[in-house]
Amino acid sequence: MAEAAENVVVSFEEFKRLRLIIGRVLEVKDHPSADRLYILRVDVGGKEKQLVAGLKGRIPADQIQGKLIVVADNLKPAVLRGERSEGMLLAATDGDKVTILTPQMEVSPGSAVS
Amino acid sequence: MAEAAENVVVSFEEFKRLRLIIGRVLEVKDHPSADRLYILRVDVGGKEKQLVAGLKGRIPADQIQGKLIVVADNLKPAVLRGERSEGMLLAATDGDKVTILTPQMEVSPGSAVS
Repeated sequence: MAEAAENVVVSFEEFKRLRLIIGRVLEVKDHPSADRLYILRVDVGGKEKQLVAGLKGRIPADQIQGKLIVVADNLKPAVLRGERSEGMLLAATDGDKVTILTPQMEVSPGSAVS
Repeated sequence: MAEAAENVVVSFEEFKRLRLIIGRVLEVKDHPSADRLYILRVDVGGKEKQLVAGLKGRIPADQIQGKLIVVADNLKPAVLRGERSEGMLLAATDGDKVTILTPQMEVSPGSAVS
């Protein structure tokens, strides 16, 4: 089990192992067999990837569709209820409110976050 | 030296070690002895921290002042040209364009990002 993040200090070298990039959401679909999951098709700069995101019922699809998002791009791929997720969309949670993170200015999909 | 991120795969457990949170920029000052550095005072939810950010000359101070930002909160503190940095502001870079990341909806400082 991972350590509780509260007590963890992360070195800059460890932080740099994580690749965060900007993606553009091309399509938002309901997961066929999970009430709380969306399946997103995302342009990450010259290529597309599929992300499974637990945002259904928390963020309406039209607040995600077409938007620039922040993607954890080099996570180990996972399969969630039979659908492959090739990374993670980052979102902020404040009680019941959940919201995506987006660049303040327009940038290209694939732009590096650091 | 850290591995090149291109070839790295990060487990979910490793990713969870990094604490990302929302901060509110309370003050932006020029670093007294570095042309490209700002010193930011940031509300991270009931406490404040100082961040040193290499954004001067790339983002005007008034595009950061008062804004909600994403902070890597549990990085090992660093000293940059004599000023302590207790984390990192995340920004996206697209060629010469650099921009902060911000939540799509208003959330409280200290809100978790995951």
